[in-house]
Amino acid sequence: MKALLPLACLLAGFAPLGSQAVIDASRPEEWRALAPENTLYMEVGGNTVVFELAPELAPRTVGNIRTLVRERYFDGLSINRVQDNYVVQWGDPDAENPAAQRRQGIPATLSPEFGVPAAGIAFTPIPGPDGFGEPGFVNGFAATRKNGAVWATHCYAALGVGRAEAADSGNGAELYVVIGHAPRHLDRNVTITGRVISGSEHLSSLKRGTGALGFYETAAERVPITRIRLGSDVPEGERLSVEIMRTDSASFRAFVDARAHRTRDGWFDSDSGFIDICNVRVPQRMPSRP
Amino acid sequence: MKALLPLACLLAGFAPLGSQAVIDASRPEEWRALAPENTLYMEVGGNTVVFELAPELAPRTVGNIRTLVRERYFDGLSINRVQDNYVVQWGDPDAENPAAQRRQGIPATLSPEFGVPAAGIAFTPIPGPDGFGEPGFVNGFAATRKNGAVWATHCYAALGVGRAEAADSGNGAELYVVIGHAPRHLDRNVTITGRVISGSEHLSSLKRGTGALGFYETAAERVPITRIRLGSDVPEGERLSVEIMRTDSASFRAFVDARAHRTRDGWFDSDSGFIDICNVRVPQRMPSRP
Repeated sequence: MKALLPLACLLAGFAPLGSQAVIDASRPEEWRALAPENTLYMEVGGNTVVFELAPELAPRTVGNIRTLVRERYFDGLSINRVQDNYVVQWGDPDAENPAAQRRQGIPATLSPEFGVPAAGIAFTPIPGPDGFGEPGFVNGFAATRKNGAVWATHCYAALGVGRAEAADSGNGAELYVVIGHAPRHLDRNVTITGRVISGSEHLSSLKRGTGALGFYETAAERVPITRIRLGSDVPEGERLSVEIMRTDSASFRAFVDARAHRTRDGWFDSDSGFIDICNVRVPQRMPSRP
Repeated sequence: MKALLPLACLLAGFAPLGSQAVIDASRPEEWRALAPENTLYMEVGGNTVVFELAPELAPRTVGNIRTLVRERYFDGLSINRVQDNYVVQWGDPDAENPAAQRRQGIPATLSPEFGVPAAGIAFTPIPGPDGFGEPGFVNGFAATRKNGAVWATHCYAALGVGRAEAADSGNGAELYVVIGHAPRHLDRNVTITGRVISGSEHLSSLKRGTGALGFYETAAERVPITRIRLGSDVPEGERLSVEIMRTDSASFRAFVDARAHRTRDGWFDSDSGFIDICNVRVPQRMPSRP
């Protein structure tokens, strides 16, 4: 059952491309590098995980995280929670013990960023339906728009801000990464502040915790964080060389369409005709050397 | 921002319950046990993973798997592929080498079960929208209905049948489990034949393979499968004691509604008003002892 050409394509006079063909046909200006000030390098358990921060969607939280990283708050702390099909979470295991907790150079509370005003955010919609709102992308980040607000969405590898009962209790000192099916019901309940660009497998393959909510039951199980650095503090030669497809580009729009029509790629027998936002996965590539 | 009572609930004269309250208020007949002939026990890497098979949705494949298990086809084989945010896959690492491959007591090809006729399948719809079709459940299995067909859906922990290029090349001897965001674009392209009931964390936490498609590059990395047994061949005292909420019950309908309105459970600040099928996660519990 091969896909028929959509009428719109015939009218426009071009043949629809498979996802690799879209990437191959893209123009150099449809790709961008990581901005060093928006990149985190986390050394954990002998591996490196690289994150991109989303200052457009969570400016205050990103500011807090930059401060915490620069003052080396996370260095020597640990991953304390690994819950299957949910999250990996790190921070100060003594966070709830005022006598033992590590000092933070930021206030304990932060006005939450569960959504920002949609006006002024360059949002690229993708085809729905989507039960949570209007799906789309903001500069590489999967996002949802609804009722005049836009927020980064809990897809696999999203970087979120842990919080306690109070909505303003997440200041960026306790962070988590999604390692299972997108828990989008968490959207608008916690702030998403970035996403993993490289090394998610070093988090998702960690031993699951056997305590409540997947917390490790013993200190020995915790996975030590050697350090987290901001990209701008990493020597240029040690930075990750990666290019990310611009999500406001024509090639990205064609890529999303190709993901909904996988028979163009071969092997697939049947097209779903649809792709959900968390399965789009923005293309990345190694930059071509001059 | 607490949820307002939906009008329908006010008219019906009951207050909507949170998910734990739904479980607590359920009646005994709204739960079922695992049928031993539809249960697999996989001993792998020193752990046990328990699966429920879905004979209603993939009768021929389930028949093949029962035959392979009974003739101990899988015993001594291995997990050969672990691809991050995708699948764990096992079978005969020599499957493509006719001289070395293990003998199978079933034909090499099988007419695929990418969907079965919807007529005659007891399908419990859940609220959409859903871009892939009409979402619902069939006796505990997340499923999609569209154009007169119904198929088990690729949610986290779904058990699928690996295949090569030809649609009929998946006979059940090569199996995989979803360990990432639901790859529902695979629906109707491979047969889903069951799901993990217990122990998915022993698969999802395995070291990722570094070869193409996440295959392990060396034989030493493969994770040995000690044996797979059908529940009916496991001594009764060693079987997993678990009850699964019937997905055609009133309590399950109330549970799905509660998952779309998480503020009823506390902590949540904002309801999504929607839950996608792969985040419903059918309730399980230990049976109460007489």
